[in-house]
Amino acid sequence: MTSARRVYLDHSATTPADPRVVEAMMPYLTERFGNASSVHFFGQEARAAVDRARREVAGVIGARSNEIVFLSGGTEANNLAIRGLCEGVKPQGRYIITSSIEHASVRGICEVLERGGWEITRLPAYEDGIVKVEDVRSALRADTVLISVMLANNEIGTIQPIREIGALVRQERAQGRKHLWLHTDAVQAAGRITIEVDQLGCDFLSLSSHKLYAPKGAGALYVRRGVRISALNVGGHQERERRAGTEAVPGIVAFGAAVRLAREELEQRNDSARELREKFEAAVAERISDVVFNGRPERRLTHISNISFRFIEGQSLLISLDLEGIAVSTGSACSSGTLEPSPVIRALGRNDELARGAIRFSFGKDNTAADVNYVVDVLSRVTQKLRTLSPLNKVKVSSSEFRVSS
Amino acid sequence: MTSARRVYLDHSATTPADPRVVEAMMPYLTERFGNASSVHFFGQEARAAVDRARREVAGVIGARSNEIVFLSGGTEANNLAIRGLCEGVKPQGRYIITSSIEHASVRGICEVLERGGWEITRLPAYEDGIVKVEDVRSALRADTVLISVMLANNEIGTIQPIREIGALVRQERAQGRKHLWLHTDAVQAAGRITIEVDQLGCDFLSLSSHKLYAPKGAGALYVRRGVRISALNVGGHQERERRAGTEAVPGIVAFGAAVRLAREELEQRNDSARELREKFEAAVAERISDVVFNGRPERRLTHISNISFRFIEGQSLLISLDLEGIAVSTGSACSSGTLEPSPVIRALGRNDELARGAIRFSFGKDNTAADVNYVVDVLSRVTQKLRTLSPLNKVKVSSSEFRVSS
Repeated sequence: MTSARRVYLDHSATTPADPRVVEAMMPYLTERFGNASSVHFFGQEARAAVDRARREVAGVIGARSNEIVFLSGGTEANNLAIRGLCEGVKPQGRYIITSSIEHASVRGICEVLERGGWEITRLPAYEDGIVKVEDVRSALRADTVLISVMLANNEIGTIQPIREIGALVRQERAQGRKHLWLHTDAVQAAGRITIEVDQLGCDFLSLSSHKLYAPKGAGALYVRRGVRISALNVGGHQERERRAGTEAVPGIVAFGAAVRLAREELEQRNDSARELREKFEAAVAERISDVVFNGRPERRLTHISNISFRFIEGQSLLISLDLEGIAVSTGSACSSGTLEPSPVIRALGRNDELARGAIRFSFGKDNTAADVNYVVDVLSRVTQKLRTLSPLNKVKVSSSEFRVSS
Repeated sequence: MTSARRVYLDHSATTPADPRVVEAMMPYLTERFGNASSVHFFGQEARAAVDRARREVAGVIGARSNEIVFLSGGTEANNLAIRGLCEGVKPQGRYIITSSIEHASVRGICEVLERGGWEITRLPAYEDGIVKVEDVRSALRADTVLISVMLANNEIGTIQPIREIGALVRQERAQGRKHLWLHTDAVQAAGRITIEVDQLGCDFLSLSSHKLYAPKGAGALYVRRGVRISALNVGGHQERERRAGTEAVPGIVAFGAAVRLAREELEQRNDSARELREKFEAAVAERISDVVFNGRPERRLTHISNISFRFIEGQSLLISLDLEGIAVSTGSACSSGTLEPSPVIRALGRNDELARGAIRFSFGKDNTAADVNYVVDVLSRVTQKLRTLSPLNKVKVSSSEFRVSS
């Protein structure tokens, strides 16, 4: 069973490559194909293209070119920032402060470090999905070496107070503290909010190309000048010894082009997404009962809407929507494959039912008002049907009993 | 100063993407752009493409699909094999046997492990550039956990006796030994010689897409079923927990297409390269004096010719050729950026002069006999000129004096 109409509302998982980005990349596949480490003409042509892309990426976050390390994606950026720092600073302390709503990759590395003897504090995000600076301050200890809190959440879109956390880190440094660093995962925020690393006060910042209408396979880590990290991939002089391996020139060129377009069209993309989301959320609130909107409404990225549908399994809803040609997700794509409810929604204090019933709708630059109308119509019909069929619905009359059994 | 004619003879550094490979990849940039971890239609379309590519790559080396881990390239494959294994097996031993002619990435990881307390034996490759199985046998100890020897060398093309080393490992296992594994870097050999992992008897095998006329940014590690490794990139369920991060679908699709073409055209590409190289080496031997061919002639990949030009700095020759539009290299691209003579050529027992004077010419499927004629003409003229100008030439009359000063 396939649908004639297809509406993609999963732009937080990945985006299609923009034809302009593909066009910029194409010459680097077949004609200008050199290895950027080669000394000759072909190599230098590739090197120049990588350097241009590096300036683009650096420019868009207010960094210097040599503070950008190109790598394969956001997960590698998070891994390199956290492991790369922590493997070098073990003597200074083994304590990390992070949040309970980080991306699977940050959560994963922290778990690996924890098994290796590191101590990790995961700060709450409260009901509105926002970490409190005072909690960071209270958690700080003399042996804290890293604070890792994302710039904006990938499931509910809430924007975190990184600038305030950065100010706290600066205060600590002003008081003579040397071994404390701040990492922020900006994979989801990039292209949506203006990022200035000096304003944020972070030492590391992760980016991914495929969330920005560039192909999958490129990412970058900003590493503040003077901060040392151990490479995860070693054995080559690329990226100033911070990431060995032949530079993926076409992907890097595409990343540079995508970042430039994202900056130029930031306002336009936000206006469009905001308008679609408002229309969507208003219609859902009006036409579908028993819904809970997740994440503080006015402190979210413009393109993400996360809604829990009571008495419905998110996975069933996702599949029903898919059969009608609508692509959404229950959590992040990187966490899929588990049947566990989203840890992010759980962190908001939602019970299992609401966490399992959460769906992320993420709008893109090519979505239209007609898409929203179609999705709301289908959603309204499908939720009604699922609720009629759902065993979860039976407990509606006796929710305490449901809670016991869940 | 740029040349009208361009001849690319650096296919061991990287290759242009084949238009047929680009064509296979294109739909996965813009239309079929889903995240392969997404549950919906777009995701499953991407997943199916990744699975197809996985079968292609597995098939070409005689492996099962689930033994293939896709990642960003050959360097990551070598890192994942060696670090991924060694981080898990520390209790069983901390001793690795490798060769003195490995790729920079294998050398680099071994150095990292060495600093971490591992013991590394680097076997000689002798004058012909080939490791001896007896040396592996002699070096084996009860605490050896890994043997890592490349399938074919990337600078001189010599094919190593991996099958014999694999047989040795099997013998050891037959005698009850459990904690000994064999890794081979097949990045340069793939597409040139037939690879069957069961015949080789290896547990890990590294591949890279951009040496096979696919774009940069994809690679694979074969991990024999039942062998456990620790992931370097963690925090996502991709690649059966062996490599977290959104799959680079377009690059993986291209890799699959490139592998298929390489298998279909293996003989044709080898015939063409062999013919060009024979013509080239015969002409060089005839027209240019004081040259030394590196690597045992009859046990080389068909496309690599490595020649030391006495009394000439390889770097100067490379630049002179580049000005005439000819792209070659002095060592591997991953090692460039150092002024050290090639460690591979040094390992053959060549002195500094010969190691510094070594140039790698690597032929590709689109090179022609006219290319060879042009290159030999230029080479003959340029070497003569450089030798006239070179301060190294002055010592020609007194080579003992030169040796002292080198």
